[in-house]
Amino acid sequence: MGVRVAVNGYGTIGKRVAYAISKQNDMQLIGVSKTKPDYNAILANRQGIPLYVPSEDHIKKFEEFGIKVAGIIEEMIKEADVIVDATPKGVGAKYKVMYEKFGKKAIFQGGEKAEIAEVSFSALCNYREALGKKYVRVVSCNTTALCRIICALRRIGNLKKIRATIVRRGADPHEYKKGPIESLVPDPVSLPSHHALDVKTVIPDVDIVTAAVVVPTTRMHLHIVNVEMTNKVSREELISILNDTPRILLVRWNYGFWSTGNIVEWARDILRPRYDIYEVIVWEESITVDNREVWLMYGVHQEAIVVPENVDAIRAIMKLEDDPIKSIQKTDASLGILKRWSI
Amino acid sequence: MGVRVAVNGYGTIGKRVAYAISKQNDMQLIGVSKTKPDYNAILANRQGIPLYVPSEDHIKKFEEFGIKVAGIIEEMIKEADVIVDATPKGVGAKYKVMYEKFGKKAIFQGGEKAEIAEVSFSALCNYREALGKKYVRVVSCNTTALCRIICALRRIGNLKKIRATIVRRGADPHEYKKGPIESLVPDPVSLPSHHALDVKTVIPDVDIVTAAVVVPTTRMHLHIVNVEMTNKVSREELISILNDTPRILLVRWNYGFWSTGNIVEWARDILRPRYDIYEVIVWEESITVDNREVWLMYGVHQEAIVVPENVDAIRAIMKLEDDPIKSIQKTDASLGILKRWSI
Repeated sequence: MGVRVAVNGYGTIGKRVAYAISKQNDMQLIGVSKTKPDYNAILANRQGIPLYVPSEDHIKKFEEFGIKVAGIIEEMIKEADVIVDATPKGVGAKYKVMYEKFGKKAIFQGGEKAEIAEVSFSALCNYREALGKKYVRVVSCNTTALCRIICALRRIGNLKKIRATIVRRGADPHEYKKGPIESLVPDPVSLPSHHALDVKTVIPDVDIVTAAVVVPTTRMHLHIVNVEMTNKVSREELISILNDTPRILLVRWNYGFWSTGNIVEWARDILRPRYDIYEVIVWEESITVDNREVWLMYGVHQEAIVVPENVDAIRAIMKLEDDPIKSIQKTDASLGILKRWSI
Repeated sequence: MGVRVAVNGYGTIGKRVAYAISKQNDMQLIGVSKTKPDYNAILANRQGIPLYVPSEDHIKKFEEFGIKVAGIIEEMIKEADVIVDATPKGVGAKYKVMYEKFGKKAIFQGGEKAEIAEVSFSALCNYREALGKKYVRVVSCNTTALCRIICALRRIGNLKKIRATIVRRGADPHEYKKGPIESLVPDPVSLPSHHALDVKTVIPDVDIVTAAVVVPTTRMHLHIVNVEMTNKVSREELISILNDTPRILLVRWNYGFWSTGNIVEWARDILRPRYDIYEVIVWEESITVDNREVWLMYGVHQEAIVVPENVDAIRAIMKLEDDPIKSIQKTDASLGILKRWSI
């Protein structure tokens, strides 16, 4: 049955991590938590996933909606070996007190401050640093994508400077009250955006500056990255290393991948559950090399990209697997993560 | 193996109808056609679906993209018992010449004029009229939804007047060049919109007026329908009849179905392939009854709703099944179409 994992919070990330855990043979999902009664709670009921709520009052409320509750969150925490905290930004810090109280290991998300954990985590970059730790933080979607690209590029040389533009989706598809619906929003207007600082929590020795703008879309972020290497590289070498790196997938614009919308359409067409795209999707035509300078553009599915990292983080924190590549391969096989899709 | 079906056109509707055919045990997919080489053509290759193109020149072009082609469309037509024409609006009329030439039965989509076929089709309303016909036209997504609702309501009384507002999605998710991105567009500005006329091609004896407005979304249409009955009805009766009608699904706003975006999110969460929603999704709270007047609001997934109707149309035109309910039940079971989702 494997390690007993509880998922605290059952929103965008929580429900996906719960799904991913159910696909692993070395861990089991012992419960998820919700604060509001809704169709997702009903789906958890129907799937037989034990559902926990903050308090006895919540139990009553959920039962009025016809939803079965297994108990309160504290009980779920007690029963778990490790908790994946997928509560909203900042709430994880409050729950950490409870995890500490019961001596439980926990994995936090990128919305929490780096200080919450001993290690900020990217499977490709620093898996081993998380081995056996008590608290690990999986960095945010944009940071996860940047880390994957940076750690791939490091395999062909040293990176002198990274300058990146992050075009961010305004809201997730279900967030019907959130905007913007029309404006372009410098966010933040002062450079660097927090993404550069966040990358350094995983890879400290890197010269990176990021600027971010929020746009009216719900379908993926898009990064434009410019890297100055200390050595000359070739485009072929670059394509080859990206093709050989897990969780990075090259697609060709020319085959109908004309926009993030079309990438999502492709994910629907290959019948990905929830159209989840775990890979960084690099447009092959965008890969440009001029002597020591490199450019590329890629899409980042904000809802899904950190999901495989969470699974690996569980394996690292619980020491289920010491070898990052073995954990990554196991996770990727379980979720159908692709390599070399394009012909 | 069953009836040999070719799908001419492999866009939004064609790829979904092809998928649905592959789930039936009384029909087989013998090929699909495409005019442009792209990832969808590669997916067809990988799934072993024979791919046909308009001309020898196209074969060359496709092969340059590494895509295998089985032959030209004319060859596909010759091999089929029936063709589902899912070509763009107006193109079906041109292909009809070829279907006639080879004496093949064909099913057209709602983008074609009603005159193209002997029957305009809605499975719930007039399945039997299509039995053994040569040409049948499945009406458009909005008309399909209106017909389902009207034919459901007719089971509890006579409809004196139907007055409906159709809030239409501006583009499909993959149509990255199409708008509007900001405006509300009366389309058309003169009443009635074509939907009312189109409903009458299926149900001639009905007093219906529709007005349509296009809005900036890619996720579903939304209808607001007001019906005056000749008799008094109760809300309970209405809910009961909607619950008992296939392909109509009641959901409660209160359970998180706050918008079309949240309906799509639910479809993702239940792992619907491509998040396809074949059902008319009625908000239960919107159902309002005042003496002989009825109001309701529902969402219509423009990409998917006509798919089950196409499967039934094949069964009717080929006389595979004389009983509409048996065909509908068979189709619905094969596609996982739900009844009574809400508690």
